[in-house]
This record gives sequence, C-alpha cells and structure tokens, in this order.
Amino acid sequence: MQYFPDPGQDLDPVLVNNAVESAFADHGNNRVQMPPKMYVTLPQGDFRTMPAYLPSLSIAGVKVVNVHPGNPALGLPTVMALTIILDIATGTPTAILNATRLTNLRTGAAGAVAAKYLCPKQEIVLGIVGTGQQAAAQVRAIAQELIIREVRVWSRNPEKAEAFAAGLGLKESHSVTLEQACDCDLLVTTTPARSPIVKSEWIHEGTHINAIGADAPGKQELDPEILRRASVYVDDPAQAIHSGEINVPIANGTFAREDIEGTLGEVVIGKKRRTSPCEITVFDSTGLAIQDLAIAHIAMQRGGSIDLPFL
Amino acid sequence: MQYFPDPGQDLDPVLVNNAVESAFADHGNNRVQMPPKMYVTLPQGDFRTMPAYLPSLSIAGVKVVNVHPGNPALGLPTVMALTIILDIATGTPTAILNATRLTNLRTGAAGAVAAKYLCPKQEIVLGIVGTGQQAAAQVRAIAQELIIREVRVWSRNPEKAEAFAAGLGLKESHSVTLEQACDCDLLVTTTPARSPIVKSEWIHEGTHINAIGADAPGKQELDPEILRRASVYVDDPAQAIHSGEINVPIANGTFAREDIEGTLGEVVIGKKRRTSPCEITVFDSTGLAIQDLAIAHIAMQRGGSIDLPFL
Repeated sequence: MQYFPDPGQDLDPVLVNNAVESAFADHGNNRVQMPPKMYVTLPQGDFRTMPAYLPSLSIAGVKVVNVHPGNPALGLPTVMALTIILDIATGTPTAILNATRLTNLRTGAAGAVAAKYLCPKQEIVLGIVGTGQQAAAQVRAIAQELIIREVRVWSRNPEKAEAFAAGLGLKESHSVTLEQACDCDLLVTTTPARSPIVKSEWIHEGTHINAIGADAPGKQELDPEILRRASVYVDDPAQAIHSGEINVPIANGTFAREDIEGTLGEVVIGKKRRTSPCEITVFDSTGLAIQDLAIAHIAMQRGGSIDLPFL
Repeated sequence: MQYFPDPGQDLDPVLVNNAVESAFADHGNNRVQMPPKMYVTLPQGDFRTMPAYLPSLSIAGVKVVNVHPGNPALGLPTVMALTIILDIATGTPTAILNATRLTNLRTGAAGAVAAKYLCPKQEIVLGIVGTGQQAAAQVRAIAQELIIREVRVWSRNPEKAEAFAAGLGLKESHSVTLEQACDCDLLVTTTPARSPIVKSEWIHEGTHINAIGADAPGKQELDPEILRRASVYVDDPAQAIHSGEINVPIANGTFAREDIEGTLGEVVIGKKRRTSPCEITVFDSTGLAIQDLAIAHIAMQRGGSIDLPFL
C-alpha cells in the first residue's frame, strides 16, 4: 500500500482540467457509481465521506474531508482530506493520498470546465468574490481554458483582496467593490456566506457564475432572484439540493428541483448547452467523489509515495 | 498521522466485548452519529463506507471495507478494511488503521454482547454454521461471556468442520450435520448463503440465534418462518432492512419493519429484553461503524504505529 504525503504539487493544470472534464463526461453518460456524500457533524465543524467507482479509469475509492471554519485561527487549514484507493478486482487498499491540495485543484478544475462550456466569451473579465485557497485554485484552472483580460477581486477584508490581486501576477487585477466584482463575464464566488451577498441587480445578462462556496445545508451566496433569471446547472442534483447554492432556495420553496437546467456532465457531453450569449448561467458546485478519483489517478502516476505494510 | 499496520493482535477480548457493548449502549441512547453504510458495487465484489462519530469516546472516523468472495482463490482475504480516525476538534486525520483483523473482532464482540443479553442460559451448547474467520471470532468472543459446554460445528465441507472443531481446543467440539448443529442453545450462522439453509423445524424453543452472514442485499441464511416465530433484534434498523438477515423477507413481504422487536442497543440499556426462556430470539448483525470506532479506540492505545507526514 502506497501513502502519498503531498501529491499534486507539480501537476499540470491542463491534465487536471482534462481528467476532471472526462469524469464529468462519464457522469453525464451515467457511467459512474457515486452515492451522495454523507455528512457527520462534529462540535466545531463536520466531515464528509465520498465513495465512488469510475469504471473508465478502473479506479475506486473514498475521500474523507473535513470542514472546520475555526481552524485557521489554530494554524490549520479549514479543509483537510485523505483519499483511499482500492484495487477494483480484489478490493485491496492500494493507496492513501493526502488529498488536501488535490481537493482544491479538482474543485478549481470543475470551475474551469464549467467556464469553458458555459461562459459566452473566450476573453473575459473575471470577478472573484472571496480570496481563500479555492479562489486561487479557480483562477489558475480557469486561466488554462479562457483568456483572462482582467480580474476584479472583492473580499470582506480589502487588504486581503489587494494581496490576492497582486499575487495573481496578472497586470490587470484589482481590488474592487463587491458590485464592481459582479460586473464581469465570469463570476466566481467562494465565500462561506450563509445569506446572499451577491445582488441580482449587479448581475448583467450573459454572465456565467461559478457558485463554489455553498457546500453544506444553510450556505448560500447568491440572491435567489439570480437563480430565477439564470439557467442553473449543478454537478450532482442530489448533492446540490442537499448542500449546494440551491439548497436554501429549495428548502424555502423559491427554487424547485424541476428548475435545475441540467448537470455539468450533460453540458460536457453536449446534451445541454447555453442557448444565447444573453443568458445568465450558474454552475452550482458541491464537489463530486469522481473528481477526487480522477485527480488521484493522475497524482499517483507522479510517484512520491511511501511504501506501507498492509497485508 | 499514525498508521497501524496490524492492530488487534493482542487485544484482550474482554476489553473488546466491553467497548462494543458500550458503543451499543450509546446507540440505544441515541448518542451517536452514524449515517447508514453505503455500498459501491465492483466487478467482483463491493466496498462499503461507514462513517460515524461516537461522542462518549470523542472519536470520529470512517471504515472502508470490501467484500470479494473470490479473493481466497487468489490468496487474499475476502474482507479487508482500513479505518481513518479524525481529530474531532479540528477534523485533522490522526490515524489510519489496518482494520481487517479488527473487523472480525468487533463483529465477534457484537455476537458476544447479543448472546450475553439474549441467550436464556449461562452454560450453553453452541451451534456453529459456517467455519470462516467470523465463526472463529464469534466463538472466542462468546467464550468470554458464557460457559460453552459443547460446540456443534457444521460446514458444507465436513473436513473444514472437523478442522474447525479440532482447532477450538475445547474437549466437547464436534463436526455434525446441519440439523444437529441447529439443536443448541445458541446458534451462530456465518455463511454467505443467498437462500435459507437453516430450517425452522430444526430450531427448538429457547434458542438464541446470531445471524451474522447476511450483510448485503439478497443474502439470507434462515428460513423466514424462524423470523416469524422469533423476537428479532437488529443492530441498526436501516442497515438490517437494506442488507441484513431480514432484507430478503422484507423485500418479498414476509417480514415487516414493524416486526423488528428492537435494537441490540435497546437490549443493552434494558429497554428491551427476552421475556421467557421459551422465546426464540434472533440477533440480525450487519456491523456498525460505531463498533469500528470503539475497537479502534482501544487498539490505538496498544501502540505499534508508524508515523506518517500529513500536514
């Protein structure tokens, strides 16, 4: 059994995007097994368990990932993860990966795949709301798929927004107001908000939004009016209804399961698509176990593992 | 992060039984978090993912366990498992345990707890149907709780039954017919049968049965008539209905959720009990994630781990 203490450091982002895109295609073609992720609540956070089997890569396994918002104050990441990989022929555990970095990368890649298919332009103004690790991962992954002409960054803490904008190494990146950040072609929201912070009046026609932050019941970043105006795509309907951007609007009746336009997998395989440059589109990302398997598959090929006795 | 390559070798079976009994008491008192185990089907078997949080021990984690019936022909165990333990305050993964041996031990302990509370006698004739690792674990664990006067062992392969009986190191242990094995005070069934092998007419009044083998949809060891005659206790109703001894009778309508007398947890806390020495009782064991946490908790105290980098 191999343990990978820090995989993903030197992964080619193009490879990651492609691997995640293929996993979504398998999902769109119903060629995966993936029970909905399960939540267990702990005193200061929660952990989620995400099993899946991806026949196209002959890979099966489980990611276990926590979310503890108080961790940064203790010098720890909010999110940490391990992925266990099993041999599909015998069920033998063959690998354990530290999946903390991989989780960021595969979520960034999902956003990039959504942007590639749903953003109406190839050259974009990118709006970034929230400046955590996931915001950075989204920019890096999206930069492989679209030409970023300008980045408009907002954070509740303007100093963080300035540092983030400066850290991107792109000439046209600025710290702006929330309203200014929303005036863009592609908006990425990555905050832990529990009530809407993005107003509908700030979102113009033709915007694509990657709604990344909401990943647990009660979390919500967008004015529900935006969802009513938009074509809403989800990664997985069951997970999105349970814990994605649509979970609160579904719970209070302002959005319905039938209002979901489709899945990102259906978009990737061409079954669903943006129908006009004026349409507003939203990708509601909750994170799929098949993304974790897809990135584990390429990360393991890079080596860097420690051999552990198992049998 | 600590890796335990082979924990449980030298665990005191009394400690294991007590730890598992306490976990069932917590379950009976609704003091655990435990989503139902999830199944993913692989080409030659399946794997199950079992997360839980046991506040009384401040322990949380996930067991991942496969079942591949063809493995012995390849020189591998049918069942292999890993357990991940997380720090409940921060969600940090703190330990990974090879849980193959622990899985046998904790299942044996559940059978011993059921026998302790539900068997009407302290000195027993023990009937054993099936002679795999789980049969051996049941005998060892039960021997801590009851006085075993005689063991009657049946296997489809009589040589295996003889070897098993001889290997127990008890004077009164014999290879017998299936009907003779069923003529006992405590019957333990541990086969992978997919249709009933134990006939109702063979089970006399006052017998307690640990039905261990059925742990996936379609598996079944007992004539459903036995369930109708008996008071049926389960480890967890949702899991038992999905994949325990009662799953087939529930699916075909010969047994109903309402026919479940109670849970082993309710028995341990005294909320439910055997009401007469003539009653037939059945414990339908599917295996709970809290059993895995309880045994991991004591196994980790024994040391024997390898330090792994994580953060």
